[in-house]
Amino acid sequence: MIKKNAQTTAAPQRRQFLTAAGLATAGAVAAASTFPAPALAQERREWKMVTSWPKGLPGLGTGAQRVADKITALSGGRITVQLFAGGELVPPLEVFDAVANNTAELGHDAAYYHIKKSPAAAFFTAVPMGLVADEINAWVYWGGGQELWDELYDGFGLKGFPAGNTGCQMGGWYRKEIGGVDDLKGLKFRMPGLGGEALQKLGATVVLLPGSEIFQNLQSGAIDGTEWVGPYNDLSLGFFQVAPYYYWPGFHEPGSMLECIVNKSEYAKLPDDLKQLVAIVCQSENDYMLAEFNGRSAPALKKLVGEHGVKLRQFPRSVLEAFGKASGEVMEELVSDGDAMTKTIAEAFFKFRSEIMAWTRISDQGYTNARLLPYNYPKG
Amino acid sequence: MIKKNAQTTAAPQRRQFLTAAGLATAGAVAAASTFPAPALAQERREWKMVTSWPKGLPGLGTGAQRVADKITALSGGRITVQLFAGGELVPPLEVFDAVANNTAELGHDAAYYHIKKSPAAAFFTAVPMGLVADEINAWVYWGGGQELWDELYDGFGLKGFPAGNTGCQMGGWYRKEIGGVDDLKGLKFRMPGLGGEALQKLGATVVLLPGSEIFQNLQSGAIDGTEWVGPYNDLSLGFFQVAPYYYWPGFHEPGSMLECIVNKSEYAKLPDDLKQLVAIVCQSENDYMLAEFNGRSAPALKKLVGEHGVKLRQFPRSVLEAFGKASGEVMEELVSDGDAMTKTIAEAFFKFRSEIMAWTRISDQGYTNARLLPYNYPKG
Repeated sequence: MIKKNAQTTAAPQRRQFLTAAGLATAGAVAAASTFPAPALAQERREWKMVTSWPKGLPGLGTGAQRVADKITALSGGRITVQLFAGGELVPPLEVFDAVANNTAELGHDAAYYHIKKSPAAAFFTAVPMGLVADEINAWVYWGGGQELWDELYDGFGLKGFPAGNTGCQMGGWYRKEIGGVDDLKGLKFRMPGLGGEALQKLGATVVLLPGSEIFQNLQSGAIDGTEWVGPYNDLSLGFFQVAPYYYWPGFHEPGSMLECIVNKSEYAKLPDDLKQLVAIVCQSENDYMLAEFNGRSAPALKKLVGEHGVKLRQFPRSVLEAFGKASGEVMEELVSDGDAMTKTIAEAFFKFRSEIMAWTRISDQGYTNARLLPYNYPKG
Repeated sequence: MIKKNAQTTAAPQRRQFLTAAGLATAGAVAAASTFPAPALAQERREWKMVTSWPKGLPGLGTGAQRVADKITALSGGRITVQLFAGGELVPPLEVFDAVANNTAELGHDAAYYHIKKSPAAAFFTAVPMGLVADEINAWVYWGGGQELWDELYDGFGLKGFPAGNTGCQMGGWYRKEIGGVDDLKGLKFRMPGLGGEALQKLGATVVLLPGSEIFQNLQSGAIDGTEWVGPYNDLSLGFFQVAPYYYWPGFHEPGSMLECIVNKSEYAKLPDDLKQLVAIVCQSENDYMLAEFNGRSAPALKKLVGEHGVKLRQFPRSVLEAFGKASGEVMEELVSDGDAMTKTIAEAFFKFRSEIMAWTRISDQGYTNARLLPYNYPKG
């Protein structure tokens, strides 16, 4: 049934012919042919992917690059995707607009950068005291989340896919220990977004700084602390040198989903198999990137504590409860200030959150708690 | 850059020609051509996928079907995969052999069914007190697990890919409450595999029964309890009618990874893009199936408790510690009885487990514990 070498013998001849005919970079050629492959008369697309990430940033940048490369490789040349780092074609936070207006056909960023377009966008990345990575996947794929997301992005001429996750983020780096809620008052802390709003309710002064300026501000004492992502990304930025207390857990971004967005009308033009290809490539990256953040954070954490003397601290219970209360208030405000679509999406999200929390409690959470009880088990 | 309709105008002509020429089902045709698509002279493969699952079994069976369908759809007809439910072509537990001897090119099952080939196979599904789903993904993709798996399966002429996960399984259905370790003594309980071995160490009589015979044995009192999967799969089997106590957490299968296995020499014959296609389709299913089990278990749990009066119970701490101790002993025995490869893989697994537990503790686990503290948050 399978004839070996058919491809390898035919390919060189074809390549020579094409070069001679100057067709190597042709767009689409509809040729009568005796060959029964279903993908014969194909359009060839050159697509741009704009991203919010510095070139090669581990996790986010490399993940976006993988999405671009896989679409190129698996489409057999029918879509060639060229990736642009943040700022190369458009500024890092303008990916949404660039894809909506078709400056680029594809984008890789985080939906919550666009909360000013609609507050509901936040639910498709992370909200304070919201869902962990596995839960947001369950919501988007199986809990009605994708349908709501489609409805939201439809209005902007976009289609969004889950395409990566940072996993649960750390509470951040602090110059001093936090003994209680009072220690947050007057604290100058770098935390963007809804988490920052919650922190502000507890008396902190929230400072917005790009990643490149955090270290010097921590060092000079201009700020008292900062959140970033987790051990994998934080290790390389060296915050431990100037803010030795590394707090857990982060309440503000428990599982930040990244999105791959496609211009809706370009997406609509794709044949069904390429539509499916884009979806499946994004889904595979959604699996792979989360595993990267988890797999790399474990050894990075060991290094931070073992080699760099980082002081790992759990937030006191009173502080965690205050984070919860402040987060709840921020979410109530987001809904009451929001438009009808935001209310609809928020309602669905909160309902799903309640249901899945009851499941997580007795599954992963209940199990991992039991696993920490004292008993002998091989250490390796 | 994109020429619309090139495909739609050319395709009907081609199809007419092919039908006339009787080439519609041709295997591989190497044709000289003027068309610059890279996938011109392609072999067309008809592949079989054998599985361990009943036809259409939600999660496992439907997931395997999705893998088969996606490979077919995205390969543009270069691989057509036909799925066989357990028993249709080979018995459910002989998938490994069938793919190794090329009765079928592909298989979808669980590695731990083949622990008699090598005890090390267990590490690529789940072991008692082992890894949750996100952790096993981190190990296989980013922690050296895939390389060890390749080394193990190489000897059997197979290549394995992660291709789904059930998530954390429940402790099971019990006819009576478990107040302490003494209540496990003499208990007739259905639990296969290494978990069953651990349970036996605590005095239980472990019974092996196929899924179809569990209900009647529970009803007649021939067994006192059974594990199965979790709310999503358990709901439909009706165990709640005869064993009302539903215990959490399961210690025996904290995140069972499913595998898609490919005959190694058939895989080696694939061109690079099809090799990558198989890997990416499996990876996407790995994401999607876990989300299915989590997303569907949340409402199923609600229904079990709310509508069917199921009594949800957490194992007492003393019982959980005993599970941990017995699991540790089973793992020590598995290693000491195992061959060199098993020792190597076990060592790597245990080392990774220790490291990732330290990360999980302060990320997903630490966060979900904090999320359950009392504070107001919208309920939806």
